[in-house]
Amino acid sequence: MIMSPQFSDMSKKMSLYVQQLQDDICQALEQFEPSTRFHTDEWTRPNGGGGKTKVIQDGTCFEKGGVNTSAVYGTITEKEAPMFQQLFTQQGIQIKSVEGAKFFATGVSLVIHPFSPLIPTTHANYRYFECKLGDIEVWWFGGGADLTPYYLDETDATHFHSVFKKACDPHGSDWYEQFKATCDTYFYLPHRQETRGIGGIFYDYQNSKSKEELYKFTKSVGHAFIDAYIPIVERHKHETFTDHQKEWQEIRRGRYVEFNLLHDRGTKFGLHTNGRIESILMSLPKHVQWRYDYHPTPGTKESELISVLQSPRNWV
Amino acid sequence: MIMSPQFSDMSKKMSLYVQQLQDDICQALEQFEPSTRFHTDEWTRPNGGGGKTKVIQDGTCFEKGGVNTSAVYGTITEKEAPMFQQLFTQQGIQIKSVEGAKFFATGVSLVIHPFSPLIPTTHANYRYFECKLGDIEVWWFGGGADLTPYYLDETDATHFHSVFKKACDPHGSDWYEQFKATCDTYFYLPHRQETRGIGGIFYDYQNSKSKEELYKFTKSVGHAFIDAYIPIVERHKHETFTDHQKEWQEIRRGRYVEFNLLHDRGTKFGLHTNGRIESILMSLPKHVQWRYDYHPTPGTKESELISVLQSPRNWV
Repeated sequence: MIMSPQFSDMSKKMSLYVQQLQDDICQALEQFEPSTRFHTDEWTRPNGGGGKTKVIQDGTCFEKGGVNTSAVYGTITEKEAPMFQQLFTQQGIQIKSVEGAKFFATGVSLVIHPFSPLIPTTHANYRYFECKLGDIEVWWFGGGADLTPYYLDETDATHFHSVFKKACDPHGSDWYEQFKATCDTYFYLPHRQETRGIGGIFYDYQNSKSKEELYKFTKSVGHAFIDAYIPIVERHKHETFTDHQKEWQEIRRGRYVEFNLLHDRGTKFGLHTNGRIESILMSLPKHVQWRYDYHPTPGTKESELISVLQSPRNWV
Repeated sequence: MIMSPQFSDMSKKMSLYVQQLQDDICQALEQFEPSTRFHTDEWTRPNGGGGKTKVIQDGTCFEKGGVNTSAVYGTITEKEAPMFQQLFTQQGIQIKSVEGAKFFATGVSLVIHPFSPLIPTTHANYRYFECKLGDIEVWWFGGGADLTPYYLDETDATHFHSVFKKACDPHGSDWYEQFKATCDTYFYLPHRQETRGIGGIFYDYQNSKSKEELYKFTKSVGHAFIDAYIPIVERHKHETFTDHQKEWQEIRRGRYVEFNLLHDRGTKFGLHTNGRIESILMSLPKHVQWRYDYHPTPGTKESELISVLQSPRNWV
């Protein structure tokens, strides 16, 4: 990706970091696949920048998964201006007109849908944004990772959250608690009155420390994803499951689709800025079901999952 | 449904009509099912009114389908006010505050997903709305029907459109052409640059004639749905299909879900007014697939469908 000298050093460092993380995550996941490998599609954005989409499909372990990176930049167009304006206003930044301002955004975003209903789906995303508005430079970091199990495994949940707590703690003593709460609030389906999964961490518009400190934090929680997720796949990869469990997984994946299409800010941002559709919607699982008014039998493992999604717990 | 005397005679006539149409449509569809029948759920809306949801699932002919009616009314709450305000503003009606105004809405809405990929999915919806804003009464009719085939059959397309043209013509000489064009514009997925299906008719905020005339028009296009769709099911019900065709149907159903969750006004209205979730989302098909960057081979029947969705044709 060709970078313009008008962007900060951090834009270069973060674009390189997200690509390194993308490679490391794909390599870590491929160890569960005897022969299937991530397929790479590189794309360029007509107005500046581009990305690399890595997708795995129909593997032994992973039914569908994608790990995307992008670094896009340019001048805010008339069409894009209202969306950016709203973004800045929400952050308390009052700018008369954003049209014509230079922006830069880079990030890595992944969603992994394993074949086995006993291995949770996971999502992670780490990103950096900067924009030059006259003499003012606006910038922030965002990111997080969360787990969406089909069957609750308390060991998995505690492990996943503990890894992120450990990665957060040196950077801010209350950051894990804060970002865990934000994650539960963000990944919530109001029409179902349940969270998407058992959470993790989520932070956005983060500029409360120096760029350098937040870059170190990003690297810490970025690579923590591998330590958080890989042991969970390892624990469950040989477990057998029933057709009924597979069906339950497909029904729950329906909720995943509902969240991503109805609520997810990343999906909306991508669709509104004419992003590459296949890279945005690679987050949708391969096989999904919607059954009318389906409710698991009380007392079952399926019903236990719903309870925890209705009242998020503390896992650490 | 208990009706309040503060609403017009039309509110009563339309609520009865949509229920009659619901019964007639369900009966017409059940003739294709040796033993499966529509299951009925009645529900009440805490703030006034209610509805009847009729759902068929796992039939011989129909994989999933729902025919809903509702008649909801009450006083516009503080929470609902912005949505109604926007609705009126879009119609050029300038009202200072809509909070506290009495509204009434009734309609029938259906989506049928056949099991066979050779039988098209269909959707239809007929509705009436009125609202008392001080001395002003605002009202309109809306509705339409459209066809979403998985394989293009020109005979089906011409038949479907012809039935609706015949039902429209006596009520407005250019109505079919006008509502056909509105349908192609409305059922469009900008991110895929294709229409949802091969269209039909769609009209909204219709109050260009008297209530009585528009009621007659509604009855005409309402029952036309049966004449438009049933012969298409009849034509294809015994045709055999391949696993590949079934897969293609599931992939195309993904587009149906994308439209309904990303764009459909009815779904948005339902979710924003705390409608009954299972009645709103019964429109989603049972089995759905999303594959990364899937494109049919040029020259195939699958590819032919895409061409017609990219450039809507005139069928009559």
